[in-house]
Amino acid sequence: MKPILVFQTDFTYKEGAVSSMYGVVKSVDRELEIMDGTHELPQYDTWSASYRLYQSLPFWPEGTIYVSVVDPGVGTSRRACVAKTKDGHFVVSPDNGSLTHVKRFIGIEAVREIDESVNRLRGKGTEEVAIFHGRDLFGYTAARLAGGIIDFAGVGSEYPVEEIVEHPILEPVVGPGRAEGIFEINDPNFGNLWTNIPLRSFNSAGFEYGDMIRAVITHEGKTVFDEKVLFHKSFGFVEKGQPMIYNNELMKAAMAVTQGSFCEKYGLSYGPEWKVTFTKD
Amino acid sequence: MKPILVFQTDFTYKEGAVSSMYGVVKSVDRELEIMDGTHELPQYDTWSASYRLYQSLPFWPEGTIYVSVVDPGVGTSRRACVAKTKDGHFVVSPDNGSLTHVKRFIGIEAVREIDESVNRLRGKGTEEVAIFHGRDLFGYTAARLAGGIIDFAGVGSEYPVEEIVEHPILEPVVGPGRAEGIFEINDPNFGNLWTNIPLRSFNSAGFEYGDMIRAVITHEGKTVFDEKVLFHKSFGFVEKGQPMIYNNELMKAAMAVTQGSFCEKYGLSYGPEWKVTFTKD
Amino acid sequence: MKPILVFQTDFTYKEGAVSSMYGVVKSVDRELEIMDGTHELPQYDTWSASYRLYQSLPFWPEGTIYVSVVDPGVGTSRRACVAKTKDGHFVVSPDNGSLTHVKRFIGIEAVREIDESVNRLRGKGTEEVAIFHGRDLFGYTAARLAGGIIDFAGVGSEYPVEEIVEHPILEPVVGPGRAEGIFEINDPNFGNLWTNIPLRSFNSAGFEYGDMIRAVITHEGKTVFDEKVLFHKSFGFVEKGQPMIYNNELMKAAMAVTQGSFCEKYGLSYGPEWKVTFTKD
Repeated sequence: MKPILVFQTDFTYKEGAVSSMYGVVKSVDRELEIMDGTHELPQYDTWSASYRLYQSLPFWPEGTIYVSVVDPGVGTSRRACVAKTKDGHFVVSPDNGSLTHVKRFIGIEAVREIDESVNRLRGKGTEEVAIFHGRDLFGYTAARLAGGIIDFAGVGSEYPVEEIVEHPILEPVVGPGRAEGIFEINDPNFGNLWTNIPLRSFNSAGFEYGDMIRAVITHEGKTVFDEKVLFHKSFGFVEKGQPMIYNNELMKAAMAVTQGSFCEKYGLSYGPEWKVTFTKD
Repeated sequence: MKPILVFQTDFTYKEGAVSSMYGVVKSVDRELEIMDGTHELPQYDTWSASYRLYQSLPFWPEGTIYVSVVDPGVGTSRRACVAKTKDGHFVVSPDNGSLTHVKRFIGIEAVREIDESVNRLRGKGTEEVAIFHGRDLFGYTAARLAGGIIDFAGVGSEYPVEEIVEHPILEPVVGPGRAEGIFEINDPNFGNLWTNIPLRSFNSAGFEYGDMIRAVITHEGKTVFDEKVLFHKSFGFVEKGQPMIYNNELMKAAMAVTQGSFCEKYGLSYGPEWKVTFTKD
Repeated sequence: MKPILVFQTDFTYKEGAVSSMYGVVKSVDRELEIMDGTHELPQYDTWSASYRLYQSLPFWPEGTIYVSVVDPGVGTSRRACVAKTKDGHFVVSPDNGSLTHVKRFIGIEAVREIDESVNRLRGKGTEEVAIFHGRDLFGYTAARLAGGIIDFAGVGSEYPVEEIVEHPILEPVVGPGRAEGIFEINDPNFGNLWTNIPLRSFNSAGFEYGDMIRAVITHEGKTVFDEKVLFHKSFGFVEKGQPMIYNNELMKAAMAVTQGSFCEKYGLSYGPEWKVTFTKD
């Protein structure tokens, strides 16, 4: 069977952009299977694009082609590329930081710049359109790759993996009875916050399910949360409305409010300026 | 052909959860067909999950496997189950009230508890994750069932249908010239409210298309709406902005504002405390 | 292969309507492929329905059946129809203005009124439901057409293309150094506004990439924006937060704010009362 195409963008489904992009894919090869990753990434947020790729890509079958289009620099000199990961997936994306987590935590075997002279939609007046690479370049190239019209080499020239644009990633600091990190992303639906501290490190600091752990959260150096919070395996172990620490789906320490929003209840968000320190005292 | 998988959750499409859940399904069996039921159920609202199942399940082909994941008790002792309905569909869901309407109005032939020792995703560190049964348990089990890797018996042990957790359902009271009920759900998009009074009962009370009917709505005993309203077959029969009574898609009496929101215009909502009485006077 | 079915509605995915509509399609023919165009069209807005059809339909393979359901007059005497376009697509829609752009800019070869005595879902109590033609009429008929159960003639009686209901479309006025038009639609996600002035006309007025162009926007005759703005091929050519003129994906002059919302920043919207004049001075 031909590879699945999964799409994630910041387009939303509010107008006709996703539809015309998918129409192009189906016009390249009627048999191709298209899945929505998400079209609700925060606008222009290449960090979120990178994180969501890392979160979902590993669960798809080998060979899956993931198209990620968060592209504030569309039409400028940023590269458009196809990356082949070490576990056998392809990512079609602007090379603008969207590949950060995949490069760092999964590994990229090779990357090629999309050759627009070959892999670009023609006709229907699209030649003069510079602002919709989702439809005219990324979706189109992904469809050609999935349909076997081109192989990976047919994407365009290879360039060094080292040149792939990356966002800085902060490392947690963990010692006995203490773990320091940041909230690196949220769960925008349920209002949970996910730290950059792996469960393994968290456990190595001596924290275990059932422990009451002191969590101090600072924003730009100012303390905004300082409470003793239960660490347990799921939300049902604290009362509705209470905060807790849990192990998220990517095996990292995270914080939530049972049947509520941790972000909203305490006015919190994520990013390098949102630090969290867990201690045993 | 293999059964279709339809998913409804309260995850939204805002992050990578749906994508990773669907990736797992496709990794179990590349051929399986996945359809979105909805991922925008109100959070933690097992009543809505139950109602939406009842609203949409009957229209799918026999054999369809509907996965419903609204799961405030994830990781606790609530059962995870697969129910086989009397009209030949399967529902994969936490047994937490989400099966109320299907059990009551469609009928459940048999139910089995998912055996986690067999039907749980392994690898990629997922063993230690307790909070994402959509991906690791429900989606995975549904995919195995749809793909023929297990049959219904392979889900796990059967338990009595009588033990399935139910929400209380209020019955309408109908007599000559009078029908009393509640608003049991809304149409969150258009702002309509749906009563629990079947069209047949409504007609038996003597109400017919073209009648002006007095509708009195109370919230916790206090009257919040008291108007004579036209009962007709569709929205175009009253002027834009005016309230009306109509027969909804599930053959129950419902109220709307033509090209507007009944909920918003009058500050109304649904639940057992929202009572409505229709009379001929 | 059987034609693809693409759906656009104003239903949203918040409840069970889309799911039951799609279930009906799959019950007609299990093999049919369903794609989401969008379910987030503005409520009751047949102008947007028309524009989004025009924006996306041409990119789908020949034979594709596009179902468009924005239907404020459901249940009244407005016609339900299937139109065959000059480039070989089908549109299934209420004939209520939703076909305006397709008729004008793509061309309609023939149109037939759906014969409800044949092409209407029966059973499950649906006969008495007058308010859900998406499920009971449009989706059902489209599925029968895609599945080969009926051919185009089997839809119902043909009627003159001239009778198709149209919204008025305003024409831009273009001369040397001057182009006048309206904002005819927005990009509701990114907050861009699209004029009705084709790039070709815009260029013929003497405007080229790199030009600073004076843009005067009036709302009901009152000036609400008057600035010199760069015209260039993509958003990266002006600084973040600055307005610009660009060539949109449909080859028309459009305005945006780089990495921001033009609509929100300046309090603008679209429609016949939103005029824009571009001059060289």
